[in-house]
Amino acid sequence: MHQTFDAALELNLLHANQKGADHNREHFDRWGITCLNIMSSPGAGKTVLLEQTLAALRDKFNIAVIEGDMTTELDADRLRQYDVPVIPINTGRSCHLDSKMVAGGIHILEHQHNPTDLDLVLVENVGNLVCPAEFEVGEHAKVALLSVTEGEDKPLKYPVMFQEADCLLITKTDLAPYLDINLDRIADNVRQMNPKIKIIYLSAKTGEGLEPWFDWISNLVKQNAVNQLARQI
Amino acid sequence: MHQTFDAALELNLLHANQKGADHNREHFDRWGITCLNIMSSPGAGKTVLLEQTLAALRDKFNIAVIEGDMTTELDADRLRQYDVPVIPINTGRSCHLDSKMVAGGIHILEHQHNPTDLDLVLVENVGNLVCPAEFEVGEHAKVALLSVTEGEDKPLKYPVMFQEADCLLITKTDLAPYLDINLDRIADNVRQMNPKIKIIYLSAKTGEGLEPWFDWISNLVKQNAVNQLARQI
Repeated sequence: MHQTFDAALELNLLHANQKGADHNREHFDRWGITCLNIMSSPGAGKTVLLEQTLAALRDKFNIAVIEGDMTTELDADRLRQYDVPVIPINTGRSCHLDSKMVAGGIHILEHQHNPTDLDLVLVENVGNLVCPAEFEVGEHAKVALLSVTEGEDKPLKYPVMFQEADCLLITKTDLAPYLDINLDRIADNVRQMNPKIKIIYLSAKTGEGLEPWFDWISNLVKQNAVNQLARQI
Repeated sequence: MHQTFDAALELNLLHANQKGADHNREHFDRWGITCLNIMSSPGAGKTVLLEQTLAALRDKFNIAVIEGDMTTELDADRLRQYDVPVIPINTGRSCHLDSKMVAGGIHILEHQHNPTDLDLVLVENVGNLVCPAEFEVGEHAKVALLSVTEGEDKPLKYPVMFQEADCLLITKTDLAPYLDINLDRIADNVRQMNPKIKIIYLSAKTGEGLEPWFDWISNLVKQNAVNQLARQI
Protein backbone atom coordinates (compact mmCIF):
# COMPACT_ATOMS: atom_id res chain seq x y z
CA MET A 1 0.00 0.00 0.00
CA HIS A 2 1.00 3.64 -0.10
CA GLN A 3 3.27 4.97 2.56
CA THR A 4 1.49 7.83 4.23
CA PHE A 5 4.46 9.03 6.30
CA ASP A 6 2.33 8.00 9.30
CA ALA A 7 2.14 4.37 10.45
CA ALA A 8 -0.82 5.04 12.78
CA LEU A 9 -2.79 6.52 9.91
CA GLU A 10 -2.08 3.46 7.78
CA LEU A 11 -3.35 1.20 10.53
CA ASN A 12 -6.50 3.33 10.91
CA LEU A 13 -7.11 3.16 7.18
CA LEU A 14 -6.76 -0.62 7.07
CA HIS A 15 -8.82 -0.98 10.27
CA ALA A 16 -11.68 1.12 8.84
CA ASN A 17 -11.52 -0.89 5.64
CA GLN A 18 -11.61 -4.19 7.54
CA LYS A 19 -14.70 -3.12 9.52
CA GLY A 20 -16.42 -2.27 6.23
CA ALA A 21 -15.38 -5.62 4.76
CA ASP A 22 -16.80 -7.52 7.74
CA HIS A 23 -20.03 -5.59 7.35
CA ASN A 24 -20.22 -6.43 3.63
CA ARG A 25 -19.64 -10.11 4.43
CA GLU A 26 -22.52 -10.06 6.92
CA HIS A 27 -24.78 -8.93 4.07
CA PHE A 28 -23.50 -11.69 1.79
CA ASP A 29 -23.94 -14.30 4.54
CA ARG A 30 -27.47 -13.17 5.34
CA TRP A 31 -28.41 -13.51 1.67
CA GLY A 32 -26.61 -16.84 1.21
CA ILE A 33 -24.12 -15.41 -1.26
CA THR A 34 -20.51 -16.47 -1.78
CA CYS A 35 -18.25 -13.60 -2.80
CA LEU A 36 -14.92 -13.94 -4.65
CA ASN A 37 -12.37 -11.13 -4.96
CA ILE A 38 -10.51 -11.61 -8.26
CA MET A 39 -7.18 -9.83 -8.56
CA SER A 40 -4.15 -9.57 -10.84
CA SER A 41 -1.93 -7.23 -12.83
CA PRO A 42 -3.61 -5.50 -15.75
CA GLY A 43 -4.04 -7.87 -18.68
CA ALA A 44 -3.54 -11.19 -16.86
CA GLY A 45 -6.98 -12.30 -18.07
CA LYS A 46 -9.51 -11.49 -15.33
CA THR A 47 -12.28 -10.34 -17.66
CA VAL A 48 -11.98 -13.22 -20.13
CA LEU A 49 -12.01 -15.59 -17.15
CA LEU A 50 -15.22 -13.98 -15.93
CA GLU A 51 -16.73 -14.27 -19.41
CA GLN A 52 -15.96 -17.99 -19.54
CA THR A 53 -17.14 -18.49 -15.96
CA LEU A 54 -20.45 -16.74 -16.57
CA ALA A 55 -21.01 -18.73 -19.77
CA ALA A 56 -20.34 -22.03 -17.97
CA LEU A 57 -21.95 -21.46 -14.57
CA ARG A 58 -24.83 -19.01 -15.03
CA ASP A 59 -27.29 -21.91 -15.45
CA LYS A 60 -25.98 -23.61 -12.32
CA PHE A 61 -25.78 -20.58 -10.02
CA ASN A 62 -27.36 -17.14 -9.94
CA ILE A 63 -24.39 -14.83 -10.38
CA ALA A 64 -23.79 -11.07 -10.21
CA VAL A 65 -20.60 -9.16 -10.95
CA ILE A 66 -19.15 -6.09 -9.23
CA GLU A 67 -16.75 -4.69 -11.80
CA GLY A 68 -13.97 -2.40 -10.60
CA ASP A 69 -12.09 -0.19 -13.03
CA MET A 70 -10.34 3.14 -12.61
CA THR A 71 -12.29 4.47 -15.56
CA THR A 72 -14.51 3.27 -18.47
CA GLU A 73 -17.17 0.53 -18.51
CA LEU A 74 -15.34 -1.50 -21.16
CA ASP A 75 -15.18 -4.63 -19.00
CA ALA A 76 -18.68 -4.18 -17.58
CA ASP A 77 -20.03 -3.96 -21.15
CA ARG A 78 -18.31 -7.23 -22.07
CA LEU A 79 -19.90 -9.00 -19.09
CA ARG A 80 -23.39 -7.57 -19.55
CA GLN A 81 -23.71 -9.77 -22.64
CA TYR A 82 -24.11 -12.76 -20.29
CA ASP A 83 -27.43 -11.52 -18.90
CA VAL A 84 -26.35 -11.27 -15.29
CA PRO A 85 -26.43 -8.16 -13.09
CA VAL A 86 -23.17 -6.23 -13.62
CA ILE A 87 -22.49 -3.31 -11.29
CA PRO A 88 -19.64 -1.09 -12.48
CA ILE A 89 -17.55 0.84 -9.96
CA ASN A 90 -15.16 3.45 -11.31
CA THR A 91 -12.45 4.05 -8.74
CA GLY A 92 -11.12 7.25 -10.34
CA ARG A 93 -7.49 7.59 -9.30
CA SER A 94 -7.72 4.82 -6.71
CA CYS A 95 -5.61 1.77 -7.46
CA HIS A 96 -7.87 -0.83 -5.83
CA LEU A 97 -11.40 -1.47 -4.66
CA ASP A 98 -11.98 -0.92 -0.96
CA SER A 99 -14.82 -2.13 1.22
CA LYS A 100 -16.65 1.20 1.06
CA MET A 101 -16.77 1.13 -2.75
CA VAL A 102 -18.02 -2.47 -2.71
CA ALA A 103 -20.64 -1.48 -0.11
CA GLY A 104 -21.92 0.94 -2.75
CA GLY A 105 -22.21 -1.99 -5.15
CA ILE A 106 -24.02 -4.07 -2.52
CA HIS A 107 -26.46 -1.21 -2.01
CA ILE A 108 -27.34 -1.32 -5.72
CA LEU A 109 -27.69 -5.13 -5.57
CA GLU A 110 -30.06 -4.74 -2.63
CA HIS A 111 -32.30 -2.16 -4.28
CA GLN A 112 -32.23 -3.09 -7.96
CA HIS A 113 -31.94 -6.89 -7.82
CA ASN A 114 -33.11 -9.58 -5.48
CA PRO A 115 -29.97 -10.51 -3.55
CA THR A 116 -31.58 -13.47 -1.73
CA ASP A 117 -31.90 -15.13 -5.15
CA LEU A 118 -28.14 -14.86 -5.79
CA ASP A 119 -25.58 -17.59 -5.07
CA LEU A 120 -22.34 -15.97 -6.20
CA VAL A 121 -20.94 -12.43 -6.49
CA LEU A 122 -17.73 -12.10 -8.49
CA VAL A 123 -15.77 -8.94 -7.72
CA GLU A 124 -13.26 -8.01 -10.44
CA ASN A 125 -10.70 -5.74 -8.83
CA VAL A 126 -8.60 -3.00 -10.48
CA GLY A 127 -5.59 -4.46 -12.32
CA ASN A 128 -2.78 -4.22 -9.79
CA LEU A 129 -0.67 -6.99 -8.28
CA VAL A 130 0.12 -5.02 -5.13
CA CYS A 131 -2.56 -2.90 -3.44
CA PRO A 132 -5.79 -4.91 -3.85
CA ALA A 133 -4.28 -7.74 -1.77
CA GLU A 134 -4.31 -5.52 1.32
CA PHE A 135 -7.88 -4.25 1.11
CA GLU A 136 -10.47 -6.91 1.91
CA VAL A 137 -13.89 -6.12 0.46
CA GLY A 138 -16.02 -8.75 2.22
CA GLU A 139 -15.06 -11.75 0.08
CA HIS A 140 -15.10 -15.38 1.20
CA ALA A 141 -12.06 -16.19 -0.92
CA LYS A 142 -9.35 -14.37 -2.85
CA VAL A 143 -8.39 -15.47 -6.37
CA ALA A 144 -5.16 -14.23 -7.95
CA LEU A 145 -4.19 -14.55 -11.62
CA LEU A 146 -0.58 -14.50 -12.83
CA SER A 147 0.11 -14.64 -16.54
CA VAL A 148 3.03 -16.82 -17.66
CA THR A 149 4.33 -13.78 -19.54
CA GLU A 150 4.95 -11.95 -16.24
CA GLY A 151 7.85 -14.23 -15.30
CA GLU A 152 8.80 -16.83 -12.71
CA ASP A 153 10.13 -14.39 -10.14
CA LYS A 154 6.94 -12.38 -9.56
CA PRO A 155 5.68 -14.37 -6.53
CA LEU A 156 9.00 -13.66 -4.80
CA LYS A 157 8.96 -9.97 -5.71
CA TYR A 158 5.27 -9.25 -4.99
CA PRO A 159 4.66 -11.65 -2.10
CA VAL A 160 1.57 -10.18 -0.41
CA MET A 161 -0.85 -11.16 -3.20
CA PHE A 162 0.44 -14.73 -3.24
CA GLN A 163 0.39 -15.04 0.54
CA GLU A 164 -3.22 -13.83 0.70
CA ALA A 165 -4.73 -15.75 -2.24
CA ASP A 166 -6.76 -18.93 -1.73
CA CYS A 167 -6.53 -19.87 -5.40
CA LEU A 168 -3.93 -18.94 -8.02
CA LEU A 169 -4.66 -19.24 -11.72
CA ILE A 170 -1.47 -19.31 -13.81
CA THR A 171 -2.90 -17.96 -17.06
CA LYS A 172 -2.00 -17.84 -20.76
CA THR A 173 -0.24 -21.21 -20.59
CA ASP A 174 -0.66 -21.41 -24.39
CA LEU A 175 2.10 -18.76 -24.65
CA ALA A 176 4.57 -20.77 -22.54
CA PRO A 177 6.23 -22.45 -25.58
CA TYR A 178 7.32 -19.00 -26.81
CA LEU A 179 8.80 -17.94 -23.47
CA ASP A 180 11.88 -18.93 -21.55
CA ILE A 181 9.90 -20.00 -18.50
CA ASN A 182 9.48 -22.98 -16.18
CA LEU A 183 5.85 -23.25 -15.06
CA ASP A 184 6.66 -25.57 -12.17
CA ARG A 185 9.08 -22.99 -10.80
CA ILE A 186 6.26 -20.42 -10.59
CA ALA A 187 4.16 -22.88 -8.59
CA ASP A 188 7.12 -23.81 -6.38
CA ASN A 189 7.84 -20.13 -5.66
CA VAL A 190 4.21 -19.59 -4.64
CA ARG A 191 3.95 -22.72 -2.48
CA GLN A 192 7.09 -21.67 -0.60
CA MET A 193 5.13 -18.82 0.95
CA ASN A 194 1.61 -20.28 0.84
CA PRO A 195 1.60 -24.09 1.07
CA LYS A 196 -2.22 -24.38 1.16
CA ILE A 197 -2.93 -22.39 -2.01
CA LYS A 198 -4.86 -24.10 -4.83
CA ILE A 199 -2.96 -23.67 -8.12
CA ILE A 200 -4.58 -24.18 -11.52
CA TYR A 201 -2.82 -23.82 -14.90
CA LEU A 202 -5.21 -22.08 -17.26
CA SER A 203 -5.47 -21.12 -20.90
CA ALA A 204 -8.52 -19.18 -22.02
CA LYS A 205 -7.51 -20.07 -25.57
CA THR A 206 -7.15 -23.86 -25.32
CA GLY A 207 -9.55 -24.32 -22.39
CA GLU A 208 -6.86 -25.96 -20.24
CA GLY A 209 -7.77 -25.67 -16.58
CA LEU A 210 -11.30 -24.35 -17.02
CA GLU A 211 -13.00 -27.49 -15.66
CA PRO A 212 -10.85 -27.60 -12.48
CA TRP A 213 -11.60 -23.88 -12.01
CA PHE A 214 -15.36 -24.39 -12.39
CA ASP A 215 -15.12 -27.33 -9.94
CA TRP A 216 -13.21 -25.19 -7.44
CA ILE A 217 -15.84 -22.43 -7.55
CA SER A 218 -18.75 -24.89 -7.39
CA ASN A 219 -17.33 -26.66 -4.34
CA LEU A 220 -16.64 -23.34 -2.63
CA VAL A 221 -20.17 -22.07 -3.21
CA LYS A 222 -21.69 -25.31 -1.91
CA GLN A 223 -19.41 -25.50 1.12
CA ASN A 224 -19.97 -21.86 1.95
CA ALA A 225 -23.75 -22.24 1.68
CA VAL A 226 -23.57 -25.11 4.20
CA ASN A 227 -21.46 -22.98 6.55
CA GLN A 228 -23.86 -20.05 6.23
CA LEU A 229 -26.86 -22.27 7.01
CA ALA A 230 -25.04 -23.93 9.93
CA ARG A 231 -24.38 -20.53 11.52
CA GLN A 232 -28.04 -19.61 11.29
CA ILE A 233 -29.29 -22.78 13.06
CA MET B 1 -3.45 6.20 -5.53
CA HIS B 2 -5.10 4.92 -2.38
CA GLN B 3 -8.24 6.61 -1.17
CA THR B 4 -7.56 7.78 2.34
CA PHE B 5 -11.13 8.83 3.15
CA ASP B 6 -9.71 12.36 3.35
CA ALA B 7 -9.10 14.45 0.23
CA ALA B 8 -7.03 17.07 2.11
CA LEU B 9 -4.73 14.35 3.42
CA GLU B 10 -4.22 13.01 -0.10
CA LEU B 11 -3.27 16.48 -1.30
CA ASN B 12 -0.84 16.88 1.58
CA LEU B 13 0.73 13.53 0.79
CA LEU B 14 1.20 14.37 -2.89
CA HIS B 15 2.41 17.87 -2.00
CA ALA B 16 5.05 16.55 0.42
CA ASN B 17 6.13 14.04 -2.21
CA GLN B 18 6.40 16.74 -4.87
CA LYS B 19 8.59 18.92 -2.64
CA GLY B 20 10.89 15.94 -2.10
CA ALA B 21 10.97 15.25 -5.85
CA ASP B 22 11.91 18.85 -6.62
CA HIS B 23 14.69 18.61 -4.06
CA ASN B 24 15.98 15.37 -5.61
CA ARG B 25 15.96 17.01 -9.04
CA GLU B 26 18.04 19.91 -7.70
CA HIS B 27 20.68 17.38 -6.68
CA PHE B 28 20.64 15.73 -10.09
CA ASP B 29 20.84 19.12 -11.85
CA ARG B 30 23.74 20.26 -9.69
CA TRP B 31 25.67 17.09 -10.56
CA GLY B 32 24.75 17.22 -14.28
CA ILE B 33 22.75 13.99 -14.11
CA THR B 34 19.68 13.08 -16.14
CA CYS B 35 17.24 10.88 -14.25
CA LEU B 36 14.64 8.57 -15.82
CA ASN B 37 11.74 7.01 -13.90
CA ILE B 38 10.93 3.65 -15.54
CA MET B 39 7.49 2.23 -14.78
CA SER B 40 5.16 -0.60 -15.83
CA SER B 41 3.11 -3.55 -14.63
CA PRO B 42 5.11 -6.44 -13.20
CA GLY B 43 6.73 -8.46 -15.95
CA ALA B 44 6.47 -5.96 -18.81
CA GLY B 45 10.24 -6.11 -19.22
CA LYS B 46 11.77 -3.24 -17.21
CA THR B 47 14.76 -5.19 -15.93
CA VAL B 48 15.71 -6.81 -19.25
CA LEU B 49 15.43 -3.34 -20.83
CA LEU B 50 17.84 -2.00 -18.21
CA GLU B 51 20.23 -4.89 -18.86
CA GLN B 52 20.28 -4.16 -22.59
CA THR B 53 20.55 -0.42 -21.98
CA LEU B 54 23.49 -0.80 -19.61
CA ALA B 55 25.25 -3.17 -22.03
CA ALA B 56 24.82 -0.70 -24.92
CA LEU B 57 25.33 2.67 -23.24
CA ARG B 58 27.69 2.15 -20.29
CA ASP B 59 30.71 3.03 -22.46
CA LYS B 60 28.99 6.17 -23.72
CA PHE B 61 27.60 7.47 -20.42
CA ASN B 62 28.39 6.95 -16.76
CA ILE B 63 25.24 5.29 -15.44
CA ALA B 64 23.88 4.32 -12.03
CA VAL B 65 20.67 2.46 -11.22
CA ILE B 66 18.25 2.97 -8.32
CA GLU B 67 16.35 -0.31 -8.18
CA GLY B 68 12.96 -0.35 -6.45
CA ASP B 69 11.35 -3.62 -5.41
CA MET B 70 8.93 -4.48 -2.63
CA THR B 71 11.28 -7.21 -1.51
CA THR B 72 14.36 -9.19 -2.70
CA GLU B 73 17.43 -7.97 -4.60
CA LEU B 74 16.79 -10.27 -7.57
CA ASP B 75 16.71 -7.43 -10.10
CA ALA B 76 19.56 -5.51 -8.46
CA ASP B 77 21.72 -8.65 -8.67
CA ARG B 78 20.98 -8.98 -12.40
CA LEU B 79 22.06 -5.38 -13.01
CA ARG B 80 25.21 -5.51 -10.85
CA GLN B 81 26.75 -7.75 -13.52
CA TYR B 82 27.11 -4.65 -15.72
CA ASP B 83 29.64 -3.01 -13.39
CA VAL B 84 27.64 0.11 -12.66
CA PRO B 85 26.53 1.34 -9.21
CA VAL B 86 23.20 -0.32 -8.36
CA ILE B 87 21.38 0.94 -5.28
CA PRO B 88 18.53 -1.35 -4.19
CA ILE B 89 15.53 0.09 -2.36
CA ASN B 90 13.09 -2.38 -0.82
CA THR B 91 9.74 -0.65 -0.40
CA GLY B 92 8.27 -3.30 1.92
CA ARG B 93 4.48 -3.15 1.53
CA SER B 94 4.60 0.08 -0.44
CA CYS B 95 3.40 -0.22 -4.04
CA HIS B 96 5.63 2.49 -5.54
CA LEU B 97 8.81 4.46 -5.00
CA ASP B 98 8.28 7.91 -3.51
CA SER B 99 10.65 10.86 -3.46
CA LYS B 100 11.74 10.17 0.12
CA MET B 101 12.86 6.63 -0.76
CA VAL B 102 14.76 7.90 -3.80
CA ALA B 103 16.37 10.60 -1.64
CA GLY B 104 17.78 7.71 0.40
CA GLY B 105 19.26 6.31 -2.81
CA ILE B 106 20.70 9.70 -3.73
CA HIS B 107 22.30 9.90 -0.29
CA ILE B 108 24.10 6.61 -0.97
CA LEU B 109 25.16 7.85 -4.43
CA GLU B 110 26.57 10.99 -2.81
CA HIS B 111 28.59 9.19 -0.17
CA GLN B 112 29.68 5.95 -1.86
CA HIS B 113 30.12 7.06 -5.47
CA ASN B 114 31.17 10.24 -7.19
CA PRO B 115 27.88 11.69 -8.46
CA THR B 116 29.52 14.51 -10.43
CA ASP B 117 31.04 11.80 -12.66
CA LEU B 118 27.62 10.39 -13.51
CA ASP B 119 25.54 11.30 -16.59
CA LEU B 120 22.46 9.14 -16.14
CA VAL B 121 20.50 7.62 -13.24
CA LEU B 122 17.92 5.01 -14.19
CA VAL B 123 15.23 4.49 -11.54
CA GLU B 124 13.37 1.17 -11.92
CA ASN B 125 10.07 1.55 -10.10
CA VAL B 126 7.97 -1.15 -8.42
CA GLY B 127 5.89 -3.09 -10.97
CA ASN B 128 2.53 -1.34 -10.91
CA LEU B 129 0.71 0.42 -13.74
CA VAL B 130 -1.25 2.69 -11.40
CA CYS B 131 0.42 4.24 -8.36
CA PRO B 132 3.98 5.05 -9.50
CA ALA B 133 2.57 7.46 -12.10
CA GLU B 134 1.35 9.79 -9.35
CA PHE B 135 4.55 9.97 -7.28
CA GLU B 136 7.31 11.95 -8.93
CA VAL B 137 10.77 11.04 -7.62
CA GLY B 138 12.86 13.84 -9.17
CA GLU B 139 13.09 12.45 -12.70
CA HIS B 140 13.58 14.49 -15.86
CA ALA B 141 11.40 12.12 -17.88
CA LYS B 142 9.00 9.25 -17.26
CA VAL B 143 9.22 6.06 -19.31
CA ALA B 144 6.32 3.58 -19.32
CA LEU B 145 6.39 0.02 -20.66
CA LEU B 146 3.30 -1.84 -21.81
CA SER B 147 3.63 -5.44 -22.93
CA VAL B 148 1.59 -6.47 -25.97
CA THR B 149 0.23 -9.34 -23.85
CA GLU B 150 -1.56 -6.84 -21.58
CA GLY B 151 -4.09 -5.92 -24.27
CA GLU B 152 -5.15 -2.96 -26.41
CA ASP B 153 -7.56 -1.47 -23.89
CA LYS B 154 -5.08 -0.83 -21.07
CA PRO B 155 -4.27 2.82 -21.95
CA LEU B 156 -8.00 3.59 -21.75
CA LYS B 157 -8.47 1.73 -18.48
CA TYR B 158 -5.32 2.96 -16.70
CA PRO B 159 -4.99 6.44 -18.17
CA VAL B 160 -2.80 8.25 -15.62
CA MET B 161 0.38 6.36 -16.52
CA PHE B 162 -0.09 7.05 -20.22
CA GLN B 163 -0.96 10.70 -19.69
CA GLU B 164 2.17 11.21 -17.58
CA ALA B 165 4.73 9.28 -19.62
CA ASP B 166 7.17 11.03 -21.98
CA CYS B 167 8.08 7.79 -23.72
CA LEU B 168 6.11 4.55 -24.08
CA LEU B 169 7.81 1.30 -24.98
CA ILE B 170 5.36 -1.28 -26.33
CA THR B 171 7.28 -4.44 -25.38
CA LYS B 172 7.35 -8.13 -26.31
CA THR B 173 6.31 -7.40 -29.89
CA ASP B 174 7.73 -10.84 -30.81
CA LEU B 175 4.66 -12.35 -29.08
CA ALA B 176 2.18 -10.32 -31.16
CA PRO B 177 1.73 -13.04 -33.82
CA TYR B 178 0.34 -15.37 -31.13
CA LEU B 179 -2.14 -12.80 -29.79
CA ASP B 180 -5.36 -11.34 -31.11
CA ILE B 181 -4.05 -7.78 -30.93
CA ASN B 182 -3.65 -4.70 -33.12
CA LEU B 183 -0.45 -2.85 -32.20
CA ASP B 184 -1.50 0.35 -33.96
CA ARG B 185 -4.67 0.45 -31.87
CA ILE B 186 -2.57 0.51 -28.68
CA ALA B 187 -0.60 3.48 -30.02
CA ASP B 188 -3.79 5.23 -31.16
CA ASN B 189 -5.39 4.75 -27.74
CA VAL B 190 -2.33 6.30 -26.08
CA ARG B 191 -2.00 9.23 -28.49
CA GLN B 192 -5.68 10.10 -27.91
CA MET B 193 -4.78 11.15 -24.37
CA ASN B 194 -1.14 12.15 -24.85
CA PRO B 195 -0.42 13.40 -28.40
CA LYS B 196 3.23 14.34 -27.64
CA ILE B 197 4.32 10.95 -26.29
CA LYS B 198 7.20 9.15 -28.01
CA ILE B 199 6.16 5.55 -28.80
CA ILE B 200 8.67 2.81 -29.60
CA TYR B 201 7.80 -0.81 -30.45
CA LEU B 202 10.32 -3.04 -28.72
CA SER B 203 11.32 -6.68 -28.53
CA ALA B 204 14.11 -7.64 -26.17
CA LYS B 205 14.26 -10.97 -28.03
CA THR B 206 14.60 -9.75 -31.64
CA GLY B 207 16.20 -6.40 -30.81
CA GLU B 208 13.42 -4.47 -32.60
CA GLY B 209 13.29 -0.90 -31.29
CA LEU B 210 16.47 -0.97 -29.24
CA GLU B 211 18.36 1.48 -31.46
CA PRO B 212 15.54 4.09 -31.43
CA TRP B 213 15.38 3.67 -27.63
CA PHE B 214 19.13 4.20 -27.22
CA ASP B 215 18.86 7.26 -29.51
CA TRP B 216 15.96 8.64 -27.46
CA ILE B 217 17.94 8.32 -24.21
CA SER B 218 21.14 9.71 -25.73
CA ASN B 219 19.37 12.78 -27.11
CA LEU B 220 17.60 13.35 -23.79
CA VAL B 221 20.86 13.16 -21.81
CA LYS B 222 22.60 15.57 -24.18
CA GLN B 223 19.69 18.04 -24.32
CA ASN B 224 19.28 17.93 -20.54
CA ALA B 225 22.99 18.54 -20.00
CA VAL B 226 22.74 21.64 -22.20
CA ASN B 227 19.72 22.87 -20.21
CA GLN B 228 21.49 22.25 -16.92
CA LEU B 229 24.56 24.19 -18.08
CA ALA B 230 22.42 27.03 -19.47
CA ARG B 231 20.71 27.45 -16.10
CA GLN B 232 24.06 27.74 -14.34
CA ILE B 233 25.35 30.52 -16.60
